Amino acid sequence: MAAAAAAPVWSVDPRTGKRREQVAVEATAATVDAAVRAAHAAGDALADRGVRAAFLRRAADLLDGAADRITAAADAETALGPGRLTGELARTTYQLRAFADVVEEGAFLDVLIDHADPALTPPRPDLRRCKIPLGVVAVYAASNFPLAFSVPGGDTASALAAGCPVVVKAHPGHPATSELSAALLRRAAAELGLPEGVVGLVHGFDAGIELVRHPLVAAAGFTGSVRGGRALYDAAAARPHPIPFHGELGSLNPVVVTEAAATERAEQIGTGLAGSMTLGTGQFCVKPGLVLAPHGPAGDRLARSLADAVRTTEAGVLLDHRMRDAFVDGVRERAALPDVEAPVAPGADGEHTVSAGFLTVPAARLAEPGGPHDLLLEECFGPVTVLARYADDTEAGAVLARLPGNLTATLQLGAAESAGEDAPPGPAGNGTGRGARLLAALTPLAGRVLVNGWPTGVAVAPAQHHGGPYPATTSTATSVGGTAIERWLRPVVYQDTPPALLPPELREDNPLALPRRIDGRREG
Amino acid sequence: MAAAAAAPVWSVDPRTGKRREQVAVEATAATVDAAVRAAHAAGDALADRGVRAAFLRRAADLLDGAADRITAAADAETALGPGRLTGELARTTYQLRAFADVVEEGAFLDVLIDHADPALTPPRPDLRRCKIPLGVVAVYAASNFPLAFSVPGGDTASALAAGCPVVVKAHPGHPATSELSAALLRRAAAELGLPEGVVGLVHGFDAGIELVRHPLVAAAGFTGSVRGGRALYDAAAARPHPIPFHGELGSLNPVVVTEAAATERAEQIGTGLAGSMTLGTGQFCVKPGLVLAPHGPAGDRLARSLADAVRTTEAGVLLDHRMRDAFVDGVRERAALPDVEAPVAPGADGEHTVSAGFLTVPAARLAEPGGPHDLLLEECFGPVTVLARYADDTEAGAVLARLPGNLTATLQLGAAESAGEDAPPGPAGNGTGRGARLLAALTPLAGRVLVNGWPTGVAVAPAQHHGGPYPATTSTATSVGGTAIERWLRPVVYQDTPPALLPPELREDNPLALPRRIDGRREG
Repeated sequence: MAAAAAAPVWSVDPRTGKRREQVAVEATAATVDAAVRAAHAAGDALADRGVRAAFLRRAADLLDGAADRITAAADAETALGPGRLTGELARTTYQLRAFADVVEEGAFLDVLIDHADPALTPPRPDLRRCKIPLGVVAVYAASNFPLAFSVPGGDTASALAAGCPVVVKAHPGHPATSELSAALLRRAAAELGLPEGVVGLVHGFDAGIELVRHPLVAAAGFTGSVRGGRALYDAAAARPHPIPFHGELGSLNPVVVTEAAATERAEQIGTGLAGSMTLGTGQFCVKPGLVLAPHGPAGDRLARSLADAVRTTEAGVLLDHRMRDAFVDGVRERAALPDVEAPVAPGADGEHTVSAGFLTVPAARLAEPGGPHDLLLEECFGPVTVLARYADDTEAGAVLARLPGNLTATLQLGAAESAGEDAPPGPAGNGTGRGARLLAALTPLAGRVLVNGWPTGVAVAPAQHHGGPYPATTSTATSVGGTAIERWLRPVVYQDTPPALLPPELREDNPLALPRRIDGRREG
Repeated sequence: MAAAAAAPVWSVDPRTGKRREQVAVEATAATVDAAVRAAHAAGDALADRGVRAAFLRRAADLLDGAADRITAAADAETALGPGRLTGELARTTYQLRAFADVVEEGAFLDVLIDHADPALTPPRPDLRRCKIPLGVVAVYAASNFPLAFSVPGGDTASALAAGCPVVVKAHPGHPATSELSAALLRRAAAELGLPEGVVGLVHGFDAGIELVRHPLVAAAGFTGSVRGGRALYDAAAARPHPIPFHGELGSLNPVVVTEAAATERAEQIGTGLAGSMTLGTGQFCVKPGLVLAPHGPAGDRLARSLADAVRTTEAGVLLDHRMRDAFVDGVRERAALPDVEAPVAPGADGEHTVSAGFLTVPAARLAEPGGPHDLLLEECFGPVTVLARYADDTEAGAVLARLPGNLTATLQLGAAESAGEDAPPGPAGNGTGRGARLLAALTPLAGRVLVNGWPTGVAVAPAQHHGGPYPATTSTATSVGGTAIERWLRPVVYQDTPPALLPPELREDNPLALPRRIDGRREG
């Protein structure tokens, strides 16, 4: 055949900008189709929950066993550093095992049983509901987490836990790490007797579009930019049969520092903020990108402390040169806005590194709709934050009212505000002070609300919620935590189905000992 | 002001095609905006769960108290008949009260608490998650349920239960019933001290588009046609900030009759099918629209029995003349296809009524992709069904493999098949006979699977699921049953939040006695 040569996929060292090796070729439409069909054919093999749990645990073991190779590969093409990557791998394998626990417990099946009631008008039939896997899940890997939000990450782990095979679209920033991770997942599958097609991997921008349009793809998970995520969301919605698209796109992660907090803890807050916004060279989706701090001496102390800490932060290497260019251009454009100052100027520092910094702006500027300062309400990926100085609660509130949706929102309160002691409690024992008021104001803005902490560091835990109003995420779901599995399931109810035909999950005698609700009440 | 006169909204009698009265005017963009803003402003008033439950119960009482007026109004503009409408009102008020129970129990808040664990690497913060209302919900009322899927129906009840104010876009087929119902809901609101804006009502096609595009509308529920629903779904997805659109669009509701079932119960099945497909003059979204019945004498008996029953069914009035035209054209187009016969021809009967009927086709015709017979795989609203005669399991399976998504799928089995006695059980006690195989084949096609029953009649019950793969619904959610409330909520997690500031739902001492999961395990 005289087909055009397939485009090569290179692993690139961001510390030098040099190509390291050719890892793969970009997937053609035919390759994507083959991967999706192989995944679809592997679906039945995931029907057994015990097999799924064992698969997830074996995958975690194999990844842990290859830790040195994985972190070396990931560091070479992301420059995130061995320390961070070792931690990220531990997080990733912990997450795989946590989903194995979720699968085994079975609460996610959400079993509801209503017994027939002939006395009702009209008579009620016997209804037995549980959740079933949607089918092949497309996973779009993130640039900034080559493991935890990529091939072996939360989307893959939760989809496999749900019983859905996956096809991952690798991020171009770490193709070698992606291939290595996928090979380990496939080896785990093979060891469990599962078809290797249960985890597919494709490279290339066009392949990503093909994937979300493929008729056998039933849902998608995405972590990345607003632009890329929105394009894929639109493609998912425009299909003849639209599919759920769970995308995490962008987040400003506002922080509100009260006057009392600044008065009591200016230096602690300034240093903490510097640590959070520069962590991982500012490449976290939960980086605090906008900080409302009071005018006046306490706020000035905070700004000085932030400046001192940021100034001494080492220059870092961003994930790739495209991001570096976007960061340098983004901070330059923001710094050039009227009334914006840069006490510590972020930007290019040498050929491959960037230095951290921050901008200041009067909060009043952000309260004006439609002006050029709206740019400061958009995420800027990299080690920069914006300190918006406000005059009073009204001005701070006006800025909050203009914010887009976020993954997180953070409050820094004074001690009395934290304890609710700055105002008498309301009639229902509810707080009426500034802390309660601000918490209520921040809740509509985000999926996670923190008090007196920093948003970086997203704990993998059953109650975690990593999502928020658009553009933080394109759905109300989470991509981290036990409930992330809900994204890949749909309910089905069996009506008046003879006991001999019922799946074991729904049998009256509950042979799998699943948690259930019977006739509207939790059993046991 | 010299604005153009607003377009009148007429209540029309489908039995005569005559206008009864002018009920309202179509909403302008400004009217829609005012309704949405009033609803948004009313949101805080719904924060208390006790108030919501009381509101839902009071609304049910007022609707029951006005039963005569409501059923008279609805009958005059839908021709559904007082008996059916009395039943529908009872279903509607039962549903309102059922959601009041759901609100009070509080399990829908899905409270998850993970305590801080400093021993973990990295240390885990304190995380407390629950669900909060999304905001203003747009409800698009259905033609065929002027109460249960319209102004006081399941979307409205579940949204209010979730704490979301609603703006309903009335269906043009029953504007007077819509106004009357909305007035009663608003009276209930006023009696509870809630702003009347908590339930808004707008009329007009353009108003419906304005509504789904309004920046303060946070989610939408829809019951209607594939064409209308898809247009609104597309508008919801194309917003600058896309919103969840829970639409129920169209469903064929396939039925598979095995050879054994036909042999044992041909007459019972034929009569049952006739009753189900002609119920409400075939205007149910769960009407069985395609029936796979075997070739041969048993299938012939079934067809004869169906013909006898359908032939004696009285002619009926469809909801409006647009639907009547669509039905008459739809059956004519289908009946003209090669190899399609009409043992009892459905179609026009007099000026305002239609007669029920059914078509037959060899199943092999439906297994051919892309041919003209694909039309038979599309829903045809009204009293018609298609009997597809199959030669063997392979041919029936080939048709099932081509079906779009459905709300329901139904099996009619023989006694031994129902009991799983036609084949020895598998190693895990699972069925291996035809019943189990067909159940597994139907499950991917629908949200509700029935055995030896008929899909019409959707029980309002905690475990109900009324939804299914596209185009049955545009999401994985249900619009009937206790879990319908999940559509209007999103999770939020509070991290390391001082006890004094926590909402009572998340306090350690659980003052509201909510069901919770603590550290990944159900409490109590």
